[in-house]
Amino acid sequence: MIGQKLMGMSEEFEQRAAELVDAGRALYMQGMVPATSGNFSAKLSDGTLAVTVSGRHKGRLTPADIMRVDAEGRSLDGRRPSAETRLHVQIYRGDQTARAVLHPHSIHATLLSKHHPGPVKLQDYELLKAFPGIDTHRSRVTVPVFENDQDISRLAGQVDRWMTENADPIFGYLIRGHGFYTWGDSVESAMRHVEAFEFLFECEMRMRYFNP
Amino acid sequence: MIGQKLMGMSEEFEQRAAELVDAGRALYMQGMVPATSGNFSAKLSDGTLAVTVSGRHKGRLTPADIMRVDAEGRSLDGRRPSAETRLHVQIYRGDQTARAVLHPHSIHATLLSKHHPGPVKLQDYELLKAFPGIDTHRSRVTVPVFENDQDISRLAGQVDRWMTENADPIFGYLIRGHGFYTWGDSVESAMRHVEAFEFLFECEMRMRYFNP
Amino acid sequence: MIGQKLMGMSEEFEQRAAELVDAGRALYMQGMVPATSGNFSAKLSDGTLAVTVSGRHKGRLTPADIMRVDAEGRSLDGRRPSAETRLHVQIYRGDQTARAVLHPHSIHATLLSKHHPGPVKLQDYELLKAFPGIDTHRSRVTVPVFENDQDISRLAGQVDRWMTENADPIFGYLIRGHGFYTWGDSVESAMRHVEAFEFLFECEMRMRYFNP
Amino acid sequence: MIGQKLMGMSEEFEQRAAELVDAGRALYMQGMVPATSGNFSAKLSDGTLAVTVSGRHKGRLTPADIMRVDAEGRSLDGRRPSAETRLHVQIYRGDQTARAVLHPHSIHATLLSKHHPGPVKLQDYELLKAFPGIDTHRSRVTVPVFENDQDISRLAGQVDRWMTENADPIFGYLIRGHGFYTWGDSVESAMRHVEAFEFLFECEMRMRYFNP
Repeated sequence: MIGQKLMGMSEEFEQRAAELVDAGRALYMQGMVPATSGNFSAKLSDGTLAVTVSGRHKGRLTPADIMRVDAEGRSLDGRRPSAETRLHVQIYRGDQTARAVLHPHSIHATLLSKHHPGPVKLQDYELLKAFPGIDTHRSRVTVPVFENDQDISRLAGQVDRWMTENADPIFGYLIRGHGFYTWGDSVESAMRHVEAFEFLFECEMRMRYFNP
Repeated sequence: MIGQKLMGMSEEFEQRAAELVDAGRALYMQGMVPATSGNFSAKLSDGTLAVTVSGRHKGRLTPADIMRVDAEGRSLDGRRPSAETRLHVQIYRGDQTARAVLHPHSIHATLLSKHHPGPVKLQDYELLKAFPGIDTHRSRVTVPVFENDQDISRLAGQVDRWMTENADPIFGYLIRGHGFYTWGDSVESAMRHVEAFEFLFECEMRMRYFNP
Repeated sequence: MIGQKLMGMSEEFEQRAAELVDAGRALYMQGMVPATSGNFSAKLSDGTLAVTVSGRHKGRLTPADIMRVDAEGRSLDGRRPSAETRLHVQIYRGDQTARAVLHPHSIHATLLSKHHPGPVKLQDYELLKAFPGIDTHRSRVTVPVFENDQDISRLAGQVDRWMTENADPIFGYLIRGHGFYTWGDSVESAMRHVEAFEFLFECEMRMRYFNP
Repeated sequence: MIGQKLMGMSEEFEQRAAELVDAGRALYMQGMVPATSGNFSAKLSDGTLAVTVSGRHKGRLTPADIMRVDAEGRSLDGRRPSAETRLHVQIYRGDQTARAVLHPHSIHATLLSKHHPGPVKLQDYELLKAFPGIDTHRSRVTVPVFENDQDISRLAGQVDRWMTENADPIFGYLIRGHGFYTWGDSVESAMRHVEAFEFLFECEMRMRYFNP
């Protein structure tokens, strides 16, 4: 019985790993994970995480580049996960519906995070409806901007504080000069949120050329 | 005999569905239908429409993602068509030559619609000759900008009013913060109009960086 | 003997047609021939031209979309060549070394031609060395800008006047709001000049955002 | 024994040549080596170099377009290496860890080098961690800008002077109006540095639209 359960887990892990490999290739083609940057994960039904091994080229991932960590982000196979795994762990705790987390480094997200001091407010875009529960362009979606920090626990603490102190749900956040994090109830949903944010961040940056 | 007629319709439907699938992949590769946005249709010879099922990824459509609605936009197979199907219905009524309608969400169309208050006037571009009946760059093509509205019937009413109150034909229109609609006498023609508009919208936006 | 000569010509035509088909696909992928715009030709050893048939999609050309015209641009097979074939004829007369002419419609060429009143002077770019006879970035390459004109003979007259009145060779020219023409001693050379001009036009446009 | 050693060298040469061919195709797809511009090399274990033959199209290289030169850049097979081979030779001498040198011509590098008078200082970007020994976004990476010069020995002398007079390591440099050079301990590392620099140069240029 235990054997069967492990087998089931293994199939689930392999399925999620394959989805993360595909997501990496798609994001690389769009220039969003240059130079081995970025990291991805998916939550399995037993609460453990499938996560990218540290330092791999995200456009050429193979299933062997996806490893298993426990719900606290500790390696289950001896390999070293991406340094920012604790940010993934924080997200899965903060949003119980999250099943996948994607962290791209895009030009427009990086610029917007460097140029805009406080949270970015997105409104009057039809594409906001890509996010769960948003059914009109009139909704306002807030994207917090956190200061970059090499101490990932401290950075995760910043995110946690925002999530607990603000009632409104967020669908992603920016880290200054670094990129953005977004998530969803599947790898596919998280990819949809990446595409929506990237589009909106580019619009926001280009609008600012008129009104710096 | 009826069987044969149905078969003929089915072949026509399959042909149009295949063209819409291809259009979706091409538009997705160009970044014009991010995050499951956009919707497409083609008019069949019996007046019914082949239209995208609501919420599908437009870059990975299969024929199963294209459904049939009647000339009023009512589902003929129980599935739910794209929420904006009524805008397609309005176009086919307003322009009897229309056989395909494409609605992409592009960065430049979105920005232009947010930045420019009234109708956009396009002139002195050789590429204007991509539109039917335009044979010189000196022609002026008007692109109305409608306010975005989640009440699609009301939005369709806005478009209808423009088409009946203005003598000059239009080849497409913008919805503020949302994207654009264009059409043609085939899926291929509608794609040509998408490419022409996207080029012209990008030119117009970039020109405004000099003269905001 | 005549049969053999015709066969030789036919092979030469097929070779050039295949090169123009490939050039079209490459230029389309780079967004430089949107919406069936653009036209291409190659000069054969008997002085006749292989040229694109009017109105074809330049990214999906087949050899059947390339036709034969005489040195004056008159159809040799009853089909209608691109409307701008006389501009190609003028170039082959004005530059005896020319064996291929490419005319893309790019965003940056269009914008530069609309924004910049007189001839564009390119200097201090290493990439200028892509043009024949240029061996230092210090050379100055002049790109004339002609007013757009639907009377192609009159437009060809403008180009001809420039070429005869100016001693310095030109490697291409802009037509206002329309695109650019460039040529070379083979399709491959003409493609190299397209890539060099497109890069340089984009640089020039982007520099003007700082110094409008 | 000598035969075996030569065979070993030949295999190493073929491996590096294949990597340079792949790098060329990837850089060409990203628009970074337009119009036969750019040049690449790798250092073999006997100190000789595998380097691109002069004037080849970098997106369509074959192993036959990669040749062998000695540690001074002199041809070992009678063919002519890229004119800028001496810059490669200088880099391998200046940085003993370098095993590959890549020189792309990108739009953003070209613009930044023309717009920015002195060395570019990169700071507060997470992506700086792509460079060896950089473990925080707070590090400052300096990118010298050298004046373009058709006398490659004199240009190499400029680079050499910078490397010997400045204690801080550099990971690449710009040549005004020309492009950039970067290197690494493998072709893969050098490609990672190309991607990181290109991203950072684009960010820097776009930031300057707000603060020219």
